[in-house]
Amino acid sequence: MENFRFYAPTYFCFGHNAEENIGELVKRFGGSKVLIHYGGGSIKRNGVYDRVIQSLTAENIPYVELGGVKPNPRSGLVYEGIALCRREQVDFILAVGGGSAIDSAKAIAAGVPYSGDFWDYYSKGIPVNEALPVATVLTIAAAGSEGSPDTVITHEEGMYKRGATGEALRPKFSILNPDATLTLDAFQTACGITDIMAHVCERYFTNTRDVEVTDRLCEAVLKTMIEESPKVIANLTDYQARANIMWAGMVAHNNIVGVGRAQDWNSHRIEHELSARYDVAHGAGLAVIMPAWMRHVMHHDITRFAQFAVRVWGCDMNFANPEITAREGIQRFRAFLTSIGMPATFAQLDAKAEDIATLTEHLFSAESEPLPGFMPLYKKDVEAIYTLAL
Amino acid sequence: MENFRFYAPTYFCFGHNAEENIGELVKRFGGSKVLIHYGGGSIKRNGVYDRVIQSLTAENIPYVELGGVKPNPRSGLVYEGIALCRREQVDFILAVGGGSAIDSAKAIAAGVPYSGDFWDYYSKGIPVNEALPVATVLTIAAAGSEGSPDTVITHEEGMYKRGATGEALRPKFSILNPDATLTLDAFQTACGITDIMAHVCERYFTNTRDVEVTDRLCEAVLKTMIEESPKVIANLTDYQARANIMWAGMVAHNNIVGVGRAQDWNSHRIEHELSARYDVAHGAGLAVIMPAWMRHVMHHDITRFAQFAVRVWGCDMNFANPEITAREGIQRFRAFLTSIGMPATFAQLDAKAEDIATLTEHLFSAESEPLPGFMPLYKKDVEAIYTLAL
Repeated sequence: MENFRFYAPTYFCFGHNAEENIGELVKRFGGSKVLIHYGGGSIKRNGVYDRVIQSLTAENIPYVELGGVKPNPRSGLVYEGIALCRREQVDFILAVGGGSAIDSAKAIAAGVPYSGDFWDYYSKGIPVNEALPVATVLTIAAAGSEGSPDTVITHEEGMYKRGATGEALRPKFSILNPDATLTLDAFQTACGITDIMAHVCERYFTNTRDVEVTDRLCEAVLKTMIEESPKVIANLTDYQARANIMWAGMVAHNNIVGVGRAQDWNSHRIEHELSARYDVAHGAGLAVIMPAWMRHVMHHDITRFAQFAVRVWGCDMNFANPEITAREGIQRFRAFLTSIGMPATFAQLDAKAEDIATLTEHLFSAESEPLPGFMPLYKKDVEAIYTLAL
Repeated sequence: MENFRFYAPTYFCFGHNAEENIGELVKRFGGSKVLIHYGGGSIKRNGVYDRVIQSLTAENIPYVELGGVKPNPRSGLVYEGIALCRREQVDFILAVGGGSAIDSAKAIAAGVPYSGDFWDYYSKGIPVNEALPVATVLTIAAAGSEGSPDTVITHEEGMYKRGATGEALRPKFSILNPDATLTLDAFQTACGITDIMAHVCERYFTNTRDVEVTDRLCEAVLKTMIEESPKVIANLTDYQARANIMWAGMVAHNNIVGVGRAQDWNSHRIEHELSARYDVAHGAGLAVIMPAWMRHVMHHDITRFAQFAVRVWGCDMNFANPEITAREGIQRFRAFLTSIGMPATFAQLDAKAEDIATLTEHLFSAESEPLPGFMPLYKKDVEAIYTLAL
């Protein structure tokens, strides 16, 4: 186990009617004027917006609004939000929505007190140590951004999708009411499930030894997802399954399952090129890329993939030939993703084989070769992974 | 799953040389004069004390000291600590030690700004919302007090061992360096292991349905303990096993494995009478009480005990007769505790059968009947559990 620090001071309010606490929590964490940041009209249709306004109004907290966040959130709206916050002297940002609204809110929060271009944090990897306080009202279990210090934004000049991170971006509080997720359709739900499982897998496949506690916690979250996901896909209004998945989504990404070990975020990096180029849903892109990544890197550590197969997917260990077990685990993961309605191939994403060289070049135009991780990836590896995903 | 709140804003610094950060962290969390609170001489022998002083001195932070905390920490030293802090205008309390030093530090922290008797928090169940900031330097994996808002103190008038809790008691930071635990002997280590497993079990046995995510997280911590404990008992200086257990001990008790579910703390309550009366080590008392509690309450929900047996202890499910599986799980737990050197009977604790009525009376003199929990316990149940533990 490696040395680590863990600091996750987000206040979570979970369950029915959790939104009632928003006004009180904004005050507790020092907000006096709020930017409500969200996407489209879904929060107005499902009542979440009204409950947010009601709670702020009850505490006499003034607010301004900025809607219009799109999936794979863009830099343009971030610049707009930064200007709005400065003009209106906003001192607290409340994201209402999923990972996109939250990530966009974090970018605005970082940009307001920063004298340079907010994109510096994303392009140069500078940690964000100063930002306006951010809080979230979560409406889809997926990104884990409600409990993480991370944000991913796509810059419209060049369509680079890049991440930033920093202690100042960890939300002050997050409202997790599974009722807010009952109106999501099956595809959105399955994309979220895939993203959650990817967040665990990208921590699970590590070269660090002696990390039994985090291995077991990773496996716990994955097994929860395997148990609860079919329930919610079969019945989209199953509150209890939604609740388990919603909390698992936070646990998957606040790093309690990832401390003390080297992690591997290459599936996310490789997928980001797909969502930036074709604007595919992030989860759908991951469903195509992750099993391909696994098949490509498996030989780097067959034992770890066999452990994944046995402990997570319940495969019998083939002691004579562990590779068979390893392959069976990946196959079951892929079949699981298909069973919840996720795509398995480039074609299902409307992505094109002839773009593989361009996707790879675009990725490495902003990343050094090789990509670090479980197995370092060179251009030829990334091309091979895209090819396995065809 | 039930509605819940989760707020665990402790900053953890984990690994080799983690003590180097103490001075900087005291300043970050607002301390300007520190009380160092500890037990006996072990921290002076193993170098931890010197590293604490070095880090405080490097940041020019003045301090006073109060040693002498005993296992099952007593009210007398708490009163002394409160007076000392007031006299010396201490504004930050640093516990160096295990659960006893930390719990005593939390009691002092609660008492300093409180105009009444600090014991009110313990005897009346008032939540502690105001306290001096507390931080910890952990030297044994056991109590989980380094990440929890809880404290347990024994009052010398009447030898009542009671708990208090409150958001203000959650440590600001905790230093977890597994090197500090390498000098513990096998018995102390095994007592800590037992306490950690008890913290998980008392969350695991619940009547709340649809808590797959926390069930799985509980099982993950227990399986970690089953894997790592024999390693450390066989080799007390196994850093990696110590590290896994140390982090598991925090995870077991900061409530990430317990949110959204009713919990059952009756094994702790029943054990507290033993440690208060005979001054036995808390973990040793739990090793005797927990399996007895399990045997007594098993019939309340055989399915849950069968799940415990299959998922945690790797038992084969007896589908024709799940009770056999349930019993096998408890039996394996008991055998595990014996294998790491824990006692299994009253006699091994020098506790006496003829005291059972007195122990039970003493417990209920401060608790209402029945004790709430997984299965409500009446006096006759508590007597039966003590009797099963003979």
